[in-house]
Amino acid sequence: MKIDFAKAGGLVPAIIQDHRSGEVLMLGFMNEASLAQTRETGEVVFFSRSRNKLWKKGESSGHVLRVREVRVDCDGDALLVRVEAVGPGVCHEGYRSCFFRTLGSDGALAVNADRVFEPQKVYKSEKP
Amino acid sequence: MKIDFAKAGGLVPAIIQDHRSGEVLMLGFMNEASLAQTRETGEVVFFSRSRNKLWKKGESSGHVLRVREVRVDCDGDALLVRVEAVGPGVCHEGYRSCFFRTLGSDGALAVNADRVFEPQKVYKSEKP
Repeated sequence: MKIDFAKAGGLVPAIIQDHRSGEVLMLGFMNEASLAQTRETGEVVFFSRSRNKLWKKGESSGHVLRVREVRVDCDGDALLVRVEAVGPGVCHEGYRSCFFRTLGSDGALAVNADRVFEPQKVYKSEKP
Repeated sequence: MKIDFAKAGGLVPAIIQDHRSGEVLMLGFMNEASLAQTRETGEVVFFSRSRNKLWKKGESSGHVLRVREVRVDCDGDALLVRVEAVGPGVCHEGYRSCFFRTLGSDGALAVNADRVFEPQKVYKSEKP
């Protein structure tokens, strides 16, 4: 069975998980070319939906994601990429994980983590 | 900031993670109505892309996902739902996680987990 890129217009969601802690760090999308580059280079390359092109995670920040394992789900339409994340955090807002906010019962979002770096010192133009 | 359902045709990916072990169990999609039902009932309701309707996880198997926390990513276009998974596993193929296969360097998929239940005894019609 192959990965089903056709189901969602050529893209599959790729969950990025810290291979040691199990923390979910971010979610990106991959097309066939970005998955191929990810596997060839051993570092995560997404397809950016907003920029409509391949996007090497860490290209400006240096916060690359080193691939330890790629898992595929039962339907072949989602990926779980277990990584070693280089640097203090993956989020362009300065947090270790992009999922740094929790949705409360009142619908408000509350920050659930500490900021671990200053984004303006790390990022020039990188942003999905 | 609200959740950005518009970015991908009314849907956002929702990662389902065991709130204790950190294991990623599956990925589904939610629209606004399924997220609302999920929050109201405390059990995960997806939007099935293949069936084009709301899909209560566990509706036939009893393997419901009890919500412990909903996290939102920096761009508001992905959800991380931390759950208590009722039953031995969430996958309709009989595994604890839907991500039970690992993509090898040769492109082949290898099963990385043991089957924990017999699907034909549990499922009648439930399948995304």
